[in-house]
Amino acid sequence: MAIDRIQSDHYRIPLPVVLSDSTHKEITHFELITARVTTTDGVEGLGYTYTVGRGGAAVHALIDREISAILKGADEGRIEHCWREMWWGLHWVGRGGPVAFAISAVDIALWDILGKHSSQPLWRLLGGNDPTVAVYAGGIDLYFTLDDLLDQTRTNLDRGFEAIKMKVGRQKLSEDVERVAAMRDYLGADFPLMVDANMGWDRERALAAARALGPYGLVWIEEPLEPEDVAGHAQVAALGTPIAAGENLHNTAEFSQLINAGGVHYVEPDLAVCGGVTAWMKIARMAEAAHLPVTSHGVHDLHVHLMAAVPNASYLENHGFGLERFIETPLVIENGRAVAPDRPGHGVEMNFAALEPFRVG
Amino acid sequence: MAIDRIQSDHYRIPLPVVLSDSTHKEITHFELITARVTTTDGVEGLGYTYTVGRGGAAVHALIDREISAILKGADEGRIEHCWREMWWGLHWVGRGGPVAFAISAVDIALWDILGKHSSQPLWRLLGGNDPTVAVYAGGIDLYFTLDDLLDQTRTNLDRGFEAIKMKVGRQKLSEDVERVAAMRDYLGADFPLMVDANMGWDRERALAAARALGPYGLVWIEEPLEPEDVAGHAQVAALGTPIAAGENLHNTAEFSQLINAGGVHYVEPDLAVCGGVTAWMKIARMAEAAHLPVTSHGVHDLHVHLMAAVPNASYLENHGFGLERFIETPLVIENGRAVAPDRPGHGVEMNFAALEPFRVG
Repeated sequence: MAIDRIQSDHYRIPLPVVLSDSTHKEITHFELITARVTTTDGVEGLGYTYTVGRGGAAVHALIDREISAILKGADEGRIEHCWREMWWGLHWVGRGGPVAFAISAVDIALWDILGKHSSQPLWRLLGGNDPTVAVYAGGIDLYFTLDDLLDQTRTNLDRGFEAIKMKVGRQKLSEDVERVAAMRDYLGADFPLMVDANMGWDRERALAAARALGPYGLVWIEEPLEPEDVAGHAQVAALGTPIAAGENLHNTAEFSQLINAGGVHYVEPDLAVCGGVTAWMKIARMAEAAHLPVTSHGVHDLHVHLMAAVPNASYLENHGFGLERFIETPLVIENGRAVAPDRPGHGVEMNFAALEPFRVG
Repeated sequence: MAIDRIQSDHYRIPLPVVLSDSTHKEITHFELITARVTTTDGVEGLGYTYTVGRGGAAVHALIDREISAILKGADEGRIEHCWREMWWGLHWVGRGGPVAFAISAVDIALWDILGKHSSQPLWRLLGGNDPTVAVYAGGIDLYFTLDDLLDQTRTNLDRGFEAIKMKVGRQKLSEDVERVAAMRDYLGADFPLMVDANMGWDRERALAAARALGPYGLVWIEEPLEPEDVAGHAQVAALGTPIAAGENLHNTAEFSQLINAGGVHYVEPDLAVCGGVTAWMKIARMAEAAHLPVTSHGVHDLHVHLMAAVPNASYLENHGFGLERFIETPLVIENGRAVAPDRPGHGVEMNFAALEPFRVG
């Protein structure tokens, strides 16, 4: 069998609620770029990636014009080979950026096909550790009032979440501290609470924040600095509150560099932007070898499989940008844990008819 | 004044001679993506970037759909500010890949405008060291016969070149050694000769090649390894023949990492892919601070200005993919040295009418 064709589609979707963080300010839309890979025996695999509002046309062009030609006729079961054909075929303009997003979407589709061909869910194909995974509610709430933040938290507790992440990175550090203190009071001493600065700090502020937030027993501080500042990550990490990072890294070498520098505790690859399932698994193994847990970023319907596969899984992020409106079978959460489905492949079915009004390419 | 509009065009151009190297095999076309930035006072700046055949549509989409909107109305003279608006506006899909190419093209156009507004050639605006620059002929000749290689060399000597680069990375290392030995015999002991492996080696082969080529007095070995293998670069560099690298790096942090690791002697940024004039100059300063020379990759009509600006310039690469057919004022070489023009800005005028038959976007 072989790859017969790859269809890519590009949608621009308004968010039900405008999101806010310290770097992207207001996010009003997200872009969804899908890749449907069909084999000569008629099996279709689904992959997808997303943007926070810009760059989707580039990702779409890379799949539609370049990768579909590069992989035409390739053996869809030689995923590692297909991955390298994409990587080297686009190397001059690649190694990251929209090329990483395009490779990710197609790689996800190839793993979906392998699952369907072998009648196995992805999480079992990849090693099968535990189908239930600890999960946290990821809030995008930097500019919420304190009352709204606590209201959202109450709702998350009612929905059964046993871990919660909030945004930090307000103009005044004292406001961040006040909000974290209020959340800690509300949740109690041992409730797992994370904070996410979305690269909103420079080194001086990041070090000050890590000192000021130290007493609040946070599970992690996420993205205290821009991803290029590897040495800065290590300085912040040395202050004792664990660091999570990785959503803005786009290849395995970037993770290797950050891990080797001691700049991250919770390794956080996003399979939709780091090179797909293939790269995510290598990063998870790299973390395991360094005695570090792995966590995930967004795209929970796919990440639940990867987190269920590996022994060093920590918390799955529950956050999908409102994509759940277009997914037929939403993520199941039972007793505070996400459950990887037993459908073949990743088991995600996209409602393309419902997406049609949002098509831009 | 402010940026009024940005027009981007995308061309796919057959090469007059099919090029060959160890990574890209045969290159039959290159893509040219231009960015023409017009200010509210009617001045137009020209920027451009290129690919080795794939990915141009993504670069074009990024300029046409995203950057033109991001920079609309911005002060064209605050180049650093415009650069950061592009970088952060496209950060989620950025930090490299086609985004680096798109930013580069627009940044080049902004510097061209500054040159026109101030009636200064770019090389003077950027510090003005020496308008004449040592230059070498970059051959793309891995699969040439030895006779053809020596014929090409004779032609290059007749054209006045006083330094030459050849490709290495053939299947058998003994063939590389034989070809380098023949070139060294032909050119004499002191003639500056470089070799370029285009990432075609793994670590074992790169170390073996650096040992085997050690006796031939090469100016440098270029790209012995893939760019991610920073530690490997340092291992090869330790064997004594200087290493050149950088054409596949897409932001200043990647250069900082390689320089700090001791993995490069001749720092080789390409302004069309590393973030434009703005990023190239930062990289050249970083090299200077580390006591390293800077060289350039391709795009000689623009790089001649940057090399003429900085005190740590080594050799300019004379290689333009046959783009010279479309440039009104070709690079001047006198007494074996390239000469930076005194026209305002970069002074490159593109023949857009001649490009029209090759338009794809």
